[in-house]
Amino acid sequence: MPLLVTGSIGIDTIRTPHGSSENCIGGSAIYFTMAASFFAPVRFIGVVGADCPFDIPGMFAGRNVDLRGLEVRAQSKTFRWAGTYKETMDDRVTDAIELNVLAEQPPAVPSAFADSRFVFLANTAPRLQIQLLRQIQAPVFVAADTMDFWITDHLDDLTELLTQIDCLIINADEAKLLARQFNLVRAAEQILTMGPSLVIVKKGESGALMCQVDGSRFVLPAYPATEVRDPTGAGDSFAGGFMGYLAQARRTDFQTLKTAVAYGTVVASFTIADFSLSGLTNATRDDIDIRLEMLRRFTCF
Amino acid sequence: MPLLVTGSIGIDTIRTPHGSSENCIGGSAIYFTMAASFFAPVRFIGVVGADCPFDIPGMFAGRNVDLRGLEVRAQSKTFRWAGTYKETMDDRVTDAIELNVLAEQPPAVPSAFADSRFVFLANTAPRLQIQLLRQIQAPVFVAADTMDFWITDHLDDLTELLTQIDCLIINADEAKLLARQFNLVRAAEQILTMGPSLVIVKKGESGALMCQVDGSRFVLPAYPATEVRDPTGAGDSFAGGFMGYLAQARRTDFQTLKTAVAYGTVVASFTIADFSLSGLTNATRDDIDIRLEMLRRFTCF
Repeated sequence: MPLLVTGSIGIDTIRTPHGSSENCIGGSAIYFTMAASFFAPVRFIGVVGADCPFDIPGMFAGRNVDLRGLEVRAQSKTFRWAGTYKETMDDRVTDAIELNVLAEQPPAVPSAFADSRFVFLANTAPRLQIQLLRQIQAPVFVAADTMDFWITDHLDDLTELLTQIDCLIINADEAKLLARQFNLVRAAEQILTMGPSLVIVKKGESGALMCQVDGSRFVLPAYPATEVRDPTGAGDSFAGGFMGYLAQARRTDFQTLKTAVAYGTVVASFTIADFSLSGLTNATRDDIDIRLEMLRRFTCF
Repeated sequence: MPLLVTGSIGIDTIRTPHGSSENCIGGSAIYFTMAASFFAPVRFIGVVGADCPFDIPGMFAGRNVDLRGLEVRAQSKTFRWAGTYKETMDDRVTDAIELNVLAEQPPAVPSAFADSRFVFLANTAPRLQIQLLRQIQAPVFVAADTMDFWITDHLDDLTELLTQIDCLIINADEAKLLARQFNLVRAAEQILTMGPSLVIVKKGESGALMCQVDGSRFVLPAYPATEVRDPTGAGDSFAGGFMGYLAQARRTDFQTLKTAVAYGTVVASFTIADFSLSGLTNATRDDIDIRLEMLRRFTCF
C-alpha cells in the first residue's frame, strides 16, 4: 500500500570524529523515503531549488518511489544544513542553516497522491503539516514528527495538528518539553491525551518507547551498533522503516506496530554506519531482515 | 546456593523532587542483599559503627540472610551519605559524605563463608576487593562493581582485580572511562580483553547492556516505570536481582544470564518506586515475577 511522505531535501555538510562529508544529500524526506522503500511503494513530496546538485530520480532508481511530488523551483535555492558531532557522538552542534526554499510555500500534493492511506508528515511548521494533511482524502494512519521550536513558539498550531494525526514520533527531550513532564512514560501518556492514539519517543542510542492510548507499551533498545560514523538521518530512517513496514503489512494492530518499531530501529542502525545515505543504500532487504532477527535474539529473554 | 556479598552499610539522607528521607538505611550491601534475598540465601559482610541506629537483623527477619559477617565496631562511626536528585531525576549531587568505618580495615570473611560459590564485591577500593576475594576458597562466579575514582586513581589495582573476576558490573560513563572508548558496545568489548568473561553496563533509565567474551550480547531497556521517587540503590538492587537469580538457578549459561539481567531490571524498578528500602520491602516474589512477564511483553516483538 503506497505511503506518502512530505519533508525536506537538503544539501548537508557533516563533520564527525570519524570523518566529514561536504555537500552531500540529506533531509528528512530523503532519509525517510530511502528507508521506507525497502518495504513499500513511497510517494515523495519535497522541493529543491535550481542549485540542487543531486540526481534524485537516479538515487531512487530501482526502488518503488513515485517522484511526481518532487518540485524543482527555478528561482529558489535548496535547503542547506551543516553540523558537527561531538567526540561522544551523542550530541551535535549546527554550524550553519539556510532554510531557502523551505521558507517558501510548500509544494502541493499531486492529485494522484490524494488517495494515500499511510502518511508521514516530517518535521516542519505544524500549520504546513495541517495544510498538507487537508489535501489527503481518507488517510488511514497519519504520523508526524515535530521539534522544540514548534512546541515553544507555535503550540496552538501543534495542538491542532495533534488532534488530526494517529501517531506522533518525537525525540525524548521534545516529548518532555511538550508534556511538561520529566518521566518519559508519563510524558508519552500525557501526549496521548492531546489527540494521537499512539506516541513513539525516539531516545537515540537508548532506543525507543511506544505507548498506545489503550495502555499498551513497548520499549526497545537501539541495535547494539559498533559502527557509528554519522548519526544524521537516524530518526527519519527510523520513521521510514516504521511506516514502511506498516504500509507493507497494511495493519496497525499492536503486534504489527511492535515489529514496525523493530524494523525502524534496524534500518536506523544501517543509516548511522556511514555518511549521508551510504549506510542505507549499501544495505539490502535481506541484510535488514537478518539484523532484525539478531535484534530479536539480543533483546528477548 | 548461597551468595556472598561484601559492601557498604550507610546512613543516607536523600532529597528528590518527590520528597526526602533523613538518616535512612542505605549502602550497597544493604540494597544488594534485600534484592538478592528474593531469590537465594545471602551471606552478608559489612561493618557499621556504634552509632548505627538500624536494627539490621530485624530488617532481614524472615529472609534467608546470614549476618555472621556483620561487624559492629565499637570505636567507629557508620558511613554516611547525603545526596540531592535534580528535577529530571537522572542526575544527583552528593551533598555530604563521611566514609568513617569504610576508611578503616574491612571486615574479615567469616570462615563459614569461605566456601561461597557466588560472590559479589560491591564498589570499594580494588585492593580491598582483591583481599576479600582471596579469602574465598573456590568461587564459581565472581562479579564486582567499581567507580570512576578507582579507574582514574587506582588503575593498577583495578587491572589486577579484573583478571580475577568473571563479571564486571559497571555504569555506562565508567565503562567508557575504563575502556577509553565512547561507543558503549566497543567499550564493553574492550573491558572483556582485560580479564572478565562478562561485562554488564548499567545505563540507568536506558537499561543495561551485557557482552560476553564469546561475542554474545544482550540489551534490555529499563522497566518503563511511572513511579520513580528515589533512584538510590537502583544499581545495587540490579546487581542483587541479577546475582540472586544466578545463585538460585545455579547456572551461568547465556540464556540464564539474560533472565538474570531481566530480574535485576525488575527488582531495580521496585527499588526506585519509593525512598530507601521501602520500594523493595513492599514487593513480594510474586510481584517480581508478574513484572518480569510484563517486561517480557513490553520488550519482545
